[in-house]
Amino acid sequence: MAEKDAKTSQVPNMPGDVTPGDDRETLENAHPADAADHLENLPLEEQLQAVGSMSTEAAAESIAEMGSSDRIQLMQSLTPESAAGILADMAVDDAVDLLDELDEAHKEQLIDKLEDAHAEELLDLLRYDPDTAGGVMNTEAVVLDERLTVDQAIGMIRKQAEDTEIPYYAYLVDENERLVGVLSMRDLLTARPGTMLENLIRNQTLVSVTFDVDREEVAHLISHYNFLALPVVDYQDRLLGVVTVDDIIDIIHEEASEDMKRMVGAAADETSDSPWTYSVRKRLPWLVVNVLNSAGSAFVVSLFEGTIQQMAFLAVLMPVVANQAGNTGQQALAVMIRQLALEKFDRRRAWVAVWRETKIGLVNGGIISLLVLCAVALVTHNAQLSAVMALALFLDMIIGALSGAAIPLLLKELGRDPAQSSSIFLTALTDSFGFLTLLGLAALLLLP
Amino acid sequence: MAEKDAKTSQVPNMPGDVTPGDDRETLENAHPADAADHLENLPLEEQLQAVGSMSTEAAAESIAEMGSSDRIQLMQSLTPESAAGILADMAVDDAVDLLDELDEAHKEQLIDKLEDAHAEELLDLLRYDPDTAGGVMNTEAVVLDERLTVDQAIGMIRKQAEDTEIPYYAYLVDENERLVGVLSMRDLLTARPGTMLENLIRNQTLVSVTFDVDREEVAHLISHYNFLALPVVDYQDRLLGVVTVDDIIDIIHEEASEDMKRMVGAAADETSDSPWTYSVRKRLPWLVVNVLNSAGSAFVVSLFEGTIQQMAFLAVLMPVVANQAGNTGQQALAVMIRQLALEKFDRRRAWVAVWRETKIGLVNGGIISLLVLCAVALVTHNAQLSAVMALALFLDMIIGALSGAAIPLLLKELGRDPAQSSSIFLTALTDSFGFLTLLGLAALLLLP
Repeated sequence: MAEKDAKTSQVPNMPGDVTPGDDRETLENAHPADAADHLENLPLEEQLQAVGSMSTEAAAESIAEMGSSDRIQLMQSLTPESAAGILADMAVDDAVDLLDELDEAHKEQLIDKLEDAHAEELLDLLRYDPDTAGGVMNTEAVVLDERLTVDQAIGMIRKQAEDTEIPYYAYLVDENERLVGVLSMRDLLTARPGTMLENLIRNQTLVSVTFDVDREEVAHLISHYNFLALPVVDYQDRLLGVVTVDDIIDIIHEEASEDMKRMVGAAADETSDSPWTYSVRKRLPWLVVNVLNSAGSAFVVSLFEGTIQQMAFLAVLMPVVANQAGNTGQQALAVMIRQLALEKFDRRRAWVAVWRETKIGLVNGGIISLLVLCAVALVTHNAQLSAVMALALFLDMIIGALSGAAIPLLLKELGRDPAQSSSIFLTALTDSFGFLTLLGLAALLLLP
Repeated sequence: MAEKDAKTSQVPNMPGDVTPGDDRETLENAHPADAADHLENLPLEEQLQAVGSMSTEAAAESIAEMGSSDRIQLMQSLTPESAAGILADMAVDDAVDLLDELDEAHKEQLIDKLEDAHAEELLDLLRYDPDTAGGVMNTEAVVLDERLTVDQAIGMIRKQAEDTEIPYYAYLVDENERLVGVLSMRDLLTARPGTMLENLIRNQTLVSVTFDVDREEVAHLISHYNFLALPVVDYQDRLLGVVTVDDIIDIIHEEASEDMKRMVGAAADETSDSPWTYSVRKRLPWLVVNVLNSAGSAFVVSLFEGTIQQMAFLAVLMPVVANQAGNTGQQALAVMIRQLALEKFDRRRAWVAVWRETKIGLVNGGIISLLVLCAVALVTHNAQLSAVMALALFLDMIIGALSGAAIPLLLKELGRDPAQSSSIFLTALTDSFGFLTLLGLAALLLLP
């Protein structure tokens, strides 16, 4: 990213320019996201000092923007009183996220210290699965009776605006508190002042989700429809809260990273900040699977020990075949996984895409094999060996392309995550098949 | 994604429910994003029919939401007159994106058919690099003089709202048209009616970018600060346009996919819809690089041809070492690349992360090597060979972890994309090093 090109005007309080003595003044006035960056780069002791010198409101906003492991450590090191004060000043959705991360003891201690009404609201929200709409929504929405007029509505919003996170949509409910429509500020500002709100939503296509919808699906809907926010309802269509676009940007970032990490058998939620022992535990099982897979390809090679003994040069060619087919397959894999992640699933289109990848493998396999044919012939002056190598490489690259595209699709059809360790399964396949063709053809055609 | 769980109320016109005869009615009233999905699934001839039956406004909104290759085909198949009509009704940023995709002949033909003022606006925008803020911004912003009062401002917005994409921010300019502040609708609605706007922005930290800032950086700023939109200015601080959050969601999706595809040497912008010959051309160069890399590891093996002739079982173990170290490295690679993509670059933290990955490699390498030690001993009853194998595997897994984490960082330090084909370089390294240690140790310790 070309960060050096960023031009910002009037940003006197960016933490980057800060000398340690200035902390009090600058952190208080800096944007919470910048203050959070700055806090993360301080040792814990100085974090505590800095937070102590900020207003609870500024501290709450900044801590909400900090990375998960940093803020857990910070919150658990504060006195319960100041931690509870900060929590009380935080937007409810951020407060719930934070509580979800703390251990049980700290969580209970903090909730005990909050006012009853506030504690109850947080406990309500904590009941939702964090991976669902209920787990990411916030509850600060502008709710209006559908029988108000446009002018009354604008007056109400003026009063409510201070308490809501994004007062750009107003949610209309009927006399049974059921959600019946959504109006944007634009709709309200351009409508005739005396119009009844219910008349503005006559032909509206209302999109909402129930609290138990997967957060990935929520992100998909918001980005598909270019919404700024999406209402969350219960099974009686009563409004529970709203998921806003800034929350789903984080989800999109996370989901995209998850695909890439899952593909190679790392944990979806790992970052360079997670405890390293966590990464050891999460990756080890897939490395064991990988060892078992390699044992499979090793077994294939062991079948041809005699062949290799007679023609040790085959061992020189083995890694070329495996490597090339593996890479071809991974190219298909990456394109396919992202396609499945971003598009609505369409079986026909998906299998067309597998055929597309196979064609690419055919052409690239053909060209690379010809190249390798010439290279091996040049080195060995052995036409037959060169031909066997080129043929094995060609076949394995096609298998690589085909299975690279098909593995995520098969995983999806089996109801699994298309990315899950697909790279590991792919390599097992291309290795075994590559060694089998190279060594098998050699045994058949080259040796007496 | 749990698509089946999605609950939408009052969505009578979702294209999924459509029978062919209903097209006219339903596409006209469906959400443009849904209409686009529906159009994409029709053959070209029916697409043309459907578009012909829609109002130009509905057609413009729907085509703006279609995938790139589908809409190029559609626009170039329409008569120049109807294509120009649709283009004229499209939001300017979408129209520019679309024109950018068409070939020169079609582009010029369409621009010729537009009104002069509109054509000039589009030509102005077409001059910006599509990968920069100027290339993704739209020009429909609410611009207000800072010397207006709050009430005058709300009145002005009411008038302008219909023409602007997201009228949730108003941009304040001074008498020289220079951008001096931003006010949200919330700020305006909660301020005292008679206040002068310039008094509301006294202590404001204004964040803007110049038109030439990379679009990734724009996405980073918007998601970092949770903005709904970010103003774009020229070098004299005059407002040129606004990048909105819905545009950057697409950028985030694309960038995340790009990392994954670049890692394995596919093209950043490939999808299953790109022409397959495009993918052939883009991937082939990296496959050639990969062949040259494999030639390197093949050369390492060729140095030990004599060793392998004497002990063919080494060829059985070779793929296990290569595979395991490669996978260990890729796990480190994936975590590191996403970290570099999502966080502000901090050299110290980055090298701490490399050390973290090395520790993980040390522990996982130790455990897996012990496992393999036992397995090889069980199969071969050869303690020395088993020890050599375990040692080679252990060392190569550490090298894998270390280089998996270090390669993206080194690429970044060299000013390159951290993801670019890093998987290919990693495999070259772990293959060569693994074969060198396994075969070298075997030659040294096991053979007379």
